[in-house]
Amino acid sequence: MPLWCILCRQRIAPEWALAITRIDAAATPWPMRPDGVVRRPGLETPMTLTELFAKPDPALAAAVTRLLERFHRADDSEAPYRREQFCQQLDDANMPGEGMDTQAYLARLEQLVPGASHLASRHYMGHMTAPLPAFTGELARLLVMLNQNPMKMESSRLLSFLEREVLAKLHRLVYRGTDDFYHHQMHAKDAALGVMTSGGTIANVTALWLARNHAVGDNLFHLVEQGYRGAVILGSRLMHYSFDKGMDLLGMGAVNVRRLETDADNRLSLPALEAALLECKALRLKVLAIIGVAGSTDFGSVDPLAELADIARRENVHFHVDAAWGGPTLFSPRYQSLLAGIEQADTVTLDGHKQLLVPLGTGMLLCKRPDLVMAVKREAPYAIRASSFDQGRFTLEGTRPANALYLDGAFQLLGETGYRTLIEANYAKARCMAALIDADPAFELMSAPVMNLLSYRCIPPHLQGKTLNKAANEQINLFNVALQKAQRAEGHSFVSRTQRPLHRYGDQPLVLLRAVLLNPQIEESDIRDLLADQTRLGLSVAAELFTDE
Amino acid sequence: MPLWCILCRQRIAPEWALAITRIDAAATPWPMRPDGVVRRPGLETPMTLTELFAKPDPALAAAVTRLLERFHRADDSEAPYRREQFCQQLDDANMPGEGMDTQAYLARLEQLVPGASHLASRHYMGHMTAPLPAFTGELARLLVMLNQNPMKMESSRLLSFLEREVLAKLHRLVYRGTDDFYHHQMHAKDAALGVMTSGGTIANVTALWLARNHAVGDNLFHLVEQGYRGAVILGSRLMHYSFDKGMDLLGMGAVNVRRLETDADNRLSLPALEAALLECKALRLKVLAIIGVAGSTDFGSVDPLAELADIARRENVHFHVDAAWGGPTLFSPRYQSLLAGIEQADTVTLDGHKQLLVPLGTGMLLCKRPDLVMAVKREAPYAIRASSFDQGRFTLEGTRPANALYLDGAFQLLGETGYRTLIEANYAKARCMAALIDADPAFELMSAPVMNLLSYRCIPPHLQGKTLNKAANEQINLFNVALQKAQRAEGHSFVSRTQRPLHRYGDQPLVLLRAVLLNPQIEESDIRDLLADQTRLGLSVAAELFTDE
Repeated sequence: MPLWCILCRQRIAPEWALAITRIDAAATPWPMRPDGVVRRPGLETPMTLTELFAKPDPALAAAVTRLLERFHRADDSEAPYRREQFCQQLDDANMPGEGMDTQAYLARLEQLVPGASHLASRHYMGHMTAPLPAFTGELARLLVMLNQNPMKMESSRLLSFLEREVLAKLHRLVYRGTDDFYHHQMHAKDAALGVMTSGGTIANVTALWLARNHAVGDNLFHLVEQGYRGAVILGSRLMHYSFDKGMDLLGMGAVNVRRLETDADNRLSLPALEAALLECKALRLKVLAIIGVAGSTDFGSVDPLAELADIARRENVHFHVDAAWGGPTLFSPRYQSLLAGIEQADTVTLDGHKQLLVPLGTGMLLCKRPDLVMAVKREAPYAIRASSFDQGRFTLEGTRPANALYLDGAFQLLGETGYRTLIEANYAKARCMAALIDADPAFELMSAPVMNLLSYRCIPPHLQGKTLNKAANEQINLFNVALQKAQRAEGHSFVSRTQRPLHRYGDQPLVLLRAVLLNPQIEESDIRDLLADQTRLGLSVAAELFTDE
Repeated sequence: MPLWCILCRQRIAPEWALAITRIDAAATPWPMRPDGVVRRPGLETPMTLTELFAKPDPALAAAVTRLLERFHRADDSEAPYRREQFCQQLDDANMPGEGMDTQAYLARLEQLVPGASHLASRHYMGHMTAPLPAFTGELARLLVMLNQNPMKMESSRLLSFLEREVLAKLHRLVYRGTDDFYHHQMHAKDAALGVMTSGGTIANVTALWLARNHAVGDNLFHLVEQGYRGAVILGSRLMHYSFDKGMDLLGMGAVNVRRLETDADNRLSLPALEAALLECKALRLKVLAIIGVAGSTDFGSVDPLAELADIARRENVHFHVDAAWGGPTLFSPRYQSLLAGIEQADTVTLDGHKQLLVPLGTGMLLCKRPDLVMAVKREAPYAIRASSFDQGRFTLEGTRPANALYLDGAFQLLGETGYRTLIEANYAKARCMAALIDADPAFELMSAPVMNLLSYRCIPPHLQGKTLNKAANEQINLFNVALQKAQRAEGHSFVSRTQRPLHRYGDQPLVLLRAVLLNPQIEESDIRDLLADQTRLGLSVAAELFTDE
């Protein structure tokens, strides 16, 4: 007896009928067009599910604009952080049964948005997240709705070429190659001037991955057979924690991130590096990479990159520079010499969401030699074919968004001049803030701004003007933790907090307040407002902490 | 002589003056407000740089809407892929000197957008990228401009709680825990029901990372000391290539992804798994994980998850299920039994940009036991403090966008009913397409649709109705490669292409065309159009390939 498809009334060969109908044994026919079955509840004119894909609701656009305008005028004090309350507000583990209409979802968004962190407030100077140029919103809508996947040419076409162009521009900013070099390498098949990543962490991890595979391959058990007892990377104590994550991930142990001493300017100590290299040889530990930091998270300090490059070359070790923060300094003729030597790095991490002023999720690893990426080349029959020139052959991630378009937008709309101007203004503001801090006995400047980061701390009234011993520093630590929390809770202004020893106080860990001058809209009066908030809050915090003294 | 800041005219203490002015030795004063120095060229009313941050250009919004409307009506034939031409179009390695105005950038976008891949065309049935509900565009604008970083509570506040709620909903979809379980775990401190990732690859890598660290820690050299000669993972030959990348990255070698035989239904063979386990014991290879595939990339097939769970438990090995494609099948009461056993997995990968219908960049790894993530916990003094309950303590990535908001939007606006309806309609369409293919001698159905994926191939006229030997299959392989390329070049319709042996033809690798029925707007007529394109193109491709025969 012939079988027929219940849907399209085609005849089905017996061998397939079983498989096709196995799941649908008890099936009654159901419509292929979902419109027939689901109507959207709560709408006067019900919107069908397929309409939901085709027709944007104009009310949503206007409402999002209103939400954003309101958000950008407010600060965290509008919906202060209360852990219990936030937990209760979002504690529904059940998937909604029926979809709600746009109106109802807008009401939900109005509850959510004020609780977000107001990172772009002009009085918030502690986050490393860039305020975004206004054009970014529309660019986001375009990029997301195009939904391109530059992992392979087939699913992004021209935008995969755009990604290569963007990477070439950044490569040139760092490595200053010739026209001829870029002409030949930008769209070459078995080459990449860099890879896009979801952020700085994956960029740093990719650098270690390339270094390891290039040096010893992907199987550490072979390294043991060569007589090595472990593998390490060497850098300053101020290396980003993504390197620990990377060494953990790569199976070489987070403990084998050797965090070496820094000098009084928070730069990696060269004698410490030479000593570590000797020790590794003695212990039969393979040195996989030397890391230079170009803009440390805590101080914005830059390691002696040119000297590190020389040592790495002498030792035949991969030299990686983490310029996630500092890289865009190269836009400034005034400041670019800070990064002298970066052009000798085998790999360089950049991070779009910091000084490149694009949204989160846009990291990059640049490679001096375009063929280095072949060390991690991978392919799959259904996706990235070996014979292709898909960028996905070289990336740690697979399918990923075409975030290069954000960079293209920012490069074209701001230009080198725009970046230079903004960066130099930010660096000037940091110097201004340092001077204001230094002039006020209620504060102690803990690191002078190299770029647009600086660290300082507040001094409680009873210790102002005193010589600070260990016990005093412990009090000041408690004071600054409490003060930073009080300021965060109030929500009008914000700096972040870290903990580090500082040369002039020996080994004692000190709580530091950390300011990041990144927002172009910050003015001197905003800096004064923030410091005034701290002075004011400091009085009540000190009264609470030190009443017995 | 006292020193004064050139900017704010504050007095500077001598010890800082050197550091602050070192870089600016030759500096003349420059303004802190960049408005004073840069005017935007090409605009009648010049827009200052800070205005660029504050004021969206209304012309851009309208233009992006127009660009998207036109894009969604077109297909790749509008700007056919020509490698040389695409290379030439984007070959400028120089950063623009001055920024251009919005108008000029819109002209650039008009050149770029038609060259993107028209993934959401109703005649494109080969991509695994979801067409997006129209509300996603505005949600993107909101999400990107909020620019929240859920790595830490401090830089996302309420949205980090939203992320936990979204993960709880997905955890419940997979693991069906009790109200009580979710009430206690959703916002618990040293726990996570899962982690957000940038995609399925990082989710699979994270699963292997958790499994390895939980079993043997982060330093493989220690595994050697325990007498192991290597480490492997076991799964079917249809495992995604991200597992190779993961084993490479983790230092255990891509070659140690053991790809085992599958049965006639493309499911992992249990006898093959048992044999591999014995072999690993004999060779002193540590088995780190057994992988179950729930929706293979090529066929949509599902491994026998319940049986794999039993074996993994018996062997005390981590059991991971890659449900990047198939996971949302759980929304359908009709089909959810396909995934029986998934609730026993230690970890499960989901991928938002596939059947969850959100943009690229939204992967998830769910963890059955919320404390498993402690195996990779990490902290940093300036960011994610040990005492915090920041989600960033557990994620492979660091700073990342708050993409959970896309999932929240889709869950709330579509609801379980919406997902169920769309999924069941898609699965029905795949069965319809299979029947159409099976009824036509110009095609051969190569795998019946389990979900909404199916594979088939085109048979050239001279081989239709013939018994197909090895030589014939080789001709058919050539024919299908040429046909798929011709169809892609024409640009009116698209299916993707893979290469696999199939049981009924022995070991011979066969070129397969792969259809993915994911777009809710596809109707039966679109499927018929696509097949008609292939029949038409097949005639000319066959004429070109087989003229001598």
